[in-house]
Amino acid sequence: MPKDTAEKSTKSKKAYAQAGVDIDLADSIKGGLKDQLARASRPEVLGKAGGFGGLFDLSKSGYKRPVLVSSVDGVGTKLKLAFSSGRHEGVGQDIVNHCVNDVAVLGAEPLFFLDYVGMGKLEPGVFQRLLAGMAKACREAGCALIGGETAQMPGFYKAGEYDLVGSVVGVVEKPKILSGAAIRPGDKLVGLGSSGLHTNGYSLATRIFFNKLRFRMDDRLPGSEVTVADALLEPHANYAGLLQQLLKRFNKGTRSDRRAGNGIFGAAHITGGGFTGNIPRILPEKCDAVVATGAWPKPAVFEILADQGGVTFDELYEVFNMGIGMVLMVAPEAAEDVVRKARRARRPAWIIGEVKAGRGRVHLT
Amino acid sequence: MPKDTAEKSTKSKKAYAQAGVDIDLADSIKGGLKDQLARASRPEVLGKAGGFGGLFDLSKSGYKRPVLVSSVDGVGTKLKLAFSSGRHEGVGQDIVNHCVNDVAVLGAEPLFFLDYVGMGKLEPGVFQRLLAGMAKACREAGCALIGGETAQMPGFYKAGEYDLVGSVVGVVEKPKILSGAAIRPGDKLVGLGSSGLHTNGYSLATRIFFNKLRFRMDDRLPGSEVTVADALLEPHANYAGLLQQLLKRFNKGTRSDRRAGNGIFGAAHITGGGFTGNIPRILPEKCDAVVATGAWPKPAVFEILADQGGVTFDELYEVFNMGIGMVLMVAPEAAEDVVRKARRARRPAWIIGEVKAGRGRVHLT
Repeated sequence: MPKDTAEKSTKSKKAYAQAGVDIDLADSIKGGLKDQLARASRPEVLGKAGGFGGLFDLSKSGYKRPVLVSSVDGVGTKLKLAFSSGRHEGVGQDIVNHCVNDVAVLGAEPLFFLDYVGMGKLEPGVFQRLLAGMAKACREAGCALIGGETAQMPGFYKAGEYDLVGSVVGVVEKPKILSGAAIRPGDKLVGLGSSGLHTNGYSLATRIFFNKLRFRMDDRLPGSEVTVADALLEPHANYAGLLQQLLKRFNKGTRSDRRAGNGIFGAAHITGGGFTGNIPRILPEKCDAVVATGAWPKPAVFEILADQGGVTFDELYEVFNMGIGMVLMVAPEAAEDVVRKARRARRPAWIIGEVKAGRGRVHLT
Repeated sequence: MPKDTAEKSTKSKKAYAQAGVDIDLADSIKGGLKDQLARASRPEVLGKAGGFGGLFDLSKSGYKRPVLVSSVDGVGTKLKLAFSSGRHEGVGQDIVNHCVNDVAVLGAEPLFFLDYVGMGKLEPGVFQRLLAGMAKACREAGCALIGGETAQMPGFYKAGEYDLVGSVVGVVEKPKILSGAAIRPGDKLVGLGSSGLHTNGYSLATRIFFNKLRFRMDDRLPGSEVTVADALLEPHANYAGLLQQLLKRFNKGTRSDRRAGNGIFGAAHITGGGFTGNIPRILPEKCDAVVATGAWPKPAVFEILADQGGVTFDELYEVFNMGIGMVLMVAPEAAEDVVRKARRARRPAWIIGEVKAGRGRVHLT
């Protein structure tokens, strides 16, 4: 039963609306929400929108030893660019893709996603575009958009601003978790190309582009065919589908361990903290990762940050993804084949380094 | 492997810190996080903090037909009172309890919780107190604190302010979902007492208390023994444990349907939208709920809102919980026993109305 059929007092008398919160407006927006939820669903989703929680029938998914993998994330200060450009759909895609990648690197299939939008005052047009972006990305990731919360917080966010948070749950068969424990010296690092800055390093990048280098949003980005706004607002790449395909192809058995035939032993999502912060999250204690930073072509946006940003080499790789959004730790004999399969799925990929004996560190060469 | 052993450039040169984001500070805070995660864990939690996603081994929980129930929520403008009073632990409890109640009303056991804190600049003391509150509430709810995200967003939130969002996943055996479909005319409404405003109606309540009635935070609340600050900051009650106990006692079979012996057929969490907005979320289309608003004593904070707030009667019950944080739809022969069991578990409870034939509406008498 939709909420808006409940009895309500007349609108003219509403003290809560005077205090800045409009429950009727919030309810009206939930109409569009139901359509979008329906278009980004899965057969396991039960019940109706508007319930207290989203229901997902895991017993239909056929997992024998299901381990749930969950992550919560925000878009961060990239949102400021959405505000100033009036382009909101892309950040909706950003939050979904950031979240699904975080569970994908552990070998999990993303199951469902929920969003949180905190706003000063609900702006239906903005919310609809965010929702359209989230629904699109959920469909592409094969993940159900199962619910969310839109909070009106008067005096909290500036006019026209909001925060956008996502929560995702995925599932993996327990013996197939990509824990990284099977990574060994000699394994190759395969880098999967990013679509841009994704959602990280924007506080620094916008300072460099707009304050230091005095670019405007509509300026053409030197060395590329797109505007600065296009380059900086390009949505986060989604690696979940590709990674699931690669795991099916390269880790065929019932375990993701070191047995013959398996090829992929770990994956790192290059987010906040860059190469230096994220690769160690999956490396075993006795392994280092050596990244050959010249092994892939840098997209224009990263060339500018590197050449004109006044950022040290080390910090570039600690803050930005530098053109690589995901790093896979791959058996040496499988590495070239993984690169080929990724490229065939239209994802740029390169062998960008290797694993050596060490103590959990990243070396940039 | 902890992130902070990764190689990093020297601090003196960090452009990102100058842009307002301190990765080292963020890493140092994660030390405290690990301790708190460890203290609010469950046997199903796998792996280490610092991975890309939280891992929860559902295969250990012994569910035969597991349906996952998930919800995302924020604390809302109650946070402003935490900022002005410097009291942060309670809002940490708030967000957990709000979330676990949302999955509990569908009959689910809360499994794990993740948080999101968006801040302008990380304030370690504030974050530690939020975390302590969340961990405490998770322990009390038997729910694992499995991870989260702390976002530094310079220029986004005002100094000393933050937004706090929670995400919870619970599980219920499919035939035991409290969908509300079994509710019938004649069922009684059992109201469970709230601890205060919980997390709803704060934009209006603070306007009334501080702007209209000119209270100060330290003033004693008329008709009570506590200060205005204590009353308004009282953490959200957690009903998840009690509801699970009641369901075990009153719905003993393998299904939560109408068969003999079952006693509880629906539950509504009275959050944003009050009685009028939330009871219909669980009512069948052909049922109305008639709430006798005189059936329970109103805590002082609600008496003041009702008597001096200048809010219409209808809107009071559309915005505030008015002393009832959860409503159960109960077989008439079980209602008094449900009330007794709740009270024995130290939760005030009353029969506050009944279900009648209708079309999904709430009537306040």
